[in-house]
Amino acid sequence: MKQVDILEEPILLTPGPLSTSRRTKQAMLRDWGSWDADFNRITGRIRAELLRIIRGEGTHDCVPLQGSGTFAVEAAIGTLVPNDGHVLVPVNGAYCERIAKICRVIGRKLTTLQVPEHQPIGAGEVERLLAADPSITHVALVHCETGTGILNPLHEIAEVAARHGRGLIVDAMSSFGALEIDARKTPFDAVIAASGKCLEGVPGMGFVLARCAALEKAQGNCHSLAMDLYDQWVYMQKTTQWRFTPPTHVVAALAEALAQYWEEGGLPARGARYARNCRELVTGMEALGFRCFLPAAIQAPIIVTFHAPADPAYEFKRFYAEVKKRGYILYPGKLTQIETFRVGCIGWYGDHAGAPGLAGAVAAVGQSLTAMGVRSGSPSRAAA
Amino acid sequence: MKQVDILEEPILLTPGPLSTSRRTKQAMLRDWGSWDADFNRITGRIRAELLRIIRGEGTHDCVPLQGSGTFAVEAAIGTLVPNDGHVLVPVNGAYCERIAKICRVIGRKLTTLQVPEHQPIGAGEVERLLAADPSITHVALVHCETGTGILNPLHEIAEVAARHGRGLIVDAMSSFGALEIDARKTPFDAVIAASGKCLEGVPGMGFVLARCAALEKAQGNCHSLAMDLYDQWVYMQKTTQWRFTPPTHVVAALAEALAQYWEEGGLPARGARYARNCRELVTGMEALGFRCFLPAAIQAPIIVTFHAPADPAYEFKRFYAEVKKRGYILYPGKLTQIETFRVGCIGWYGDHAGAPGLAGAVAAVGQSLTAMGVRSGSPSRAAA
Repeated sequence: MKQVDILEEPILLTPGPLSTSRRTKQAMLRDWGSWDADFNRITGRIRAELLRIIRGEGTHDCVPLQGSGTFAVEAAIGTLVPNDGHVLVPVNGAYCERIAKICRVIGRKLTTLQVPEHQPIGAGEVERLLAADPSITHVALVHCETGTGILNPLHEIAEVAARHGRGLIVDAMSSFGALEIDARKTPFDAVIAASGKCLEGVPGMGFVLARCAALEKAQGNCHSLAMDLYDQWVYMQKTTQWRFTPPTHVVAALAEALAQYWEEGGLPARGARYARNCRELVTGMEALGFRCFLPAAIQAPIIVTFHAPADPAYEFKRFYAEVKKRGYILYPGKLTQIETFRVGCIGWYGDHAGAPGLAGAVAAVGQSLTAMGVRSGSPSRAAA
Repeated sequence: MKQVDILEEPILLTPGPLSTSRRTKQAMLRDWGSWDADFNRITGRIRAELLRIIRGEGTHDCVPLQGSGTFAVEAAIGTLVPNDGHVLVPVNGAYCERIAKICRVIGRKLTTLQVPEHQPIGAGEVERLLAADPSITHVALVHCETGTGILNPLHEIAEVAARHGRGLIVDAMSSFGALEIDARKTPFDAVIAASGKCLEGVPGMGFVLARCAALEKAQGNCHSLAMDLYDQWVYMQKTTQWRFTPPTHVVAALAEALAQYWEEGGLPARGARYARNCRELVTGMEALGFRCFLPAAIQAPIIVTFHAPADPAYEFKRFYAEVKKRGYILYPGKLTQIETFRVGCIGWYGDHAGAPGLAGAVAAVGQSLTAMGVRSGSPSRAAA
């Protein structure tokens, strides 16, 4: 494999893995012993910093886990929901569906609340279900549903769950670090995210920010040895080490990514940068005729779903290839009924040649349409 | 975090994570889209090359999995052993114990065969148990037990299992790629290993080389969504992609490590290098008075367990720190009854200043003893 100049590789407009800074990747240029105190200090620092992001000091603790974000979601459900628990999963997209599937596979009683993909989950509906069924012990919510890019009302649903004395487990995979989640204001048992999303680390580990009181009573719940967050937590507190071999380079990269996160100004700055990216993207794409799948009010500044153009010359595979030739990697749509594609607004574009970011992406999309003979991005036939 | 010159970091004498080449780490200096064909070609190449190492083309397939090696072991047991299966686990060390624990946690019927830690598992004893209990469906064997460094007789046990029509699942974590496992000669259902061991990649993914016939009948067995190797296999065959976000940088590093593996001469060359390392280590340590825990005949050239010196001035923590100051990271012992420490013989030392390898390690150990006032490495009081 030839050495690739990081300035020339395509920008990833995907919701993780995403483009990371050169500095973050360079942190992977050394090997660490997983038993060594130097490495375990990095683990300790990361855990403290992730906790600080949600202001969970004193109430919650951070338990990192090897694998992708889904491993951490499954670990959180399996560890925090007891065998005789009952999980309510409101579903308005693919990642909510995945949580429901986890409950089915690992054998936790499940109730789903089906909501159309273009609508946020309503706290009122969740409340109605909790009131009607006292056997529900936990609500499992996706904060930003990456399948569409919709933002679900975490705070309102958290208050409902707390009022009814139920636990709340939040998949904040694609929002963590960019959209505020404050444990002092918003009650939850666990928030789950991963290294390779808005923190702009590389993929390979997830983490769960869990209420200590919930962790303490979770011994023996988990269906898995490797995914048992209780065991991981207890072992890590005792030894400062991971229970099984950690992805040392991924951990070192996350530490370096977090250093840059704080230097940038933490959550407000990260969120503002992504919001700017999102505006730049949407404005530019709309000028090319594209239309967003979601109304702006419920669109998270993480990933935007666009309707496919109606022009018969449009075809996603060709479009993807043309845009890629121009330096950007798009993401396919994840809706079953409507043809769409997605563009992520997260990641670090500053180390790419010319650092064109989303404006450059819009230009690449425009040029690609022209190359394909697509006259407009409009999804209605009249405009095409 | 300051940029560290990779030539000056300590050499890891640990059985994974271990020291990797500069070239392998540099392969992590770019980001990859996990949906993109360029990345999926890397995945495909890795899968084919890992299969080639065991000569499993046509009979077996490679299913990679996010997480540490233990995740892959749990996934293999959970996917390949049905719910009503029964696993015989011969136990002569900590990693065998871990497999037994996995069976208990995920609810597979378990029988253990306890063997002293300084003895290899006997094929005859396994045969006796299989003959006596026809309900045993699988044997789960650790090839090289890293807890001590012992090599278990894989081929003999595989023949016994095959003769009795039972499945064999092999944890080859620390032997894979250095010690021969040939699927054409040795019958097995699955061999499991990980990126950060003898292949000299970085940690963050495991893989299972499973018999296709065993995979085909494994649908619905797994206790976990994320660890379901059947689903991962089917999805990967259909899409060339990983089911959930892959650790893209770790995957790219493994591809680069494999390129170096073939350039070096593949398994015979890798095994010979480690055998040389092991001889150099044992000879040098014995000259300092140390004594190996295992007789040479059953010692794998992967990791060597040494008795702690009897000299009252010896203390492991201080010893570790002194050796580390001199550029080498040791590994603690894992035996419960006897005080020991371990030294790995695997990894790439060629990019370190002076490339002193194991001879340098022995010198560092000698200087450390002197610094501590330990007169000899001998575990008997007479010599100290």
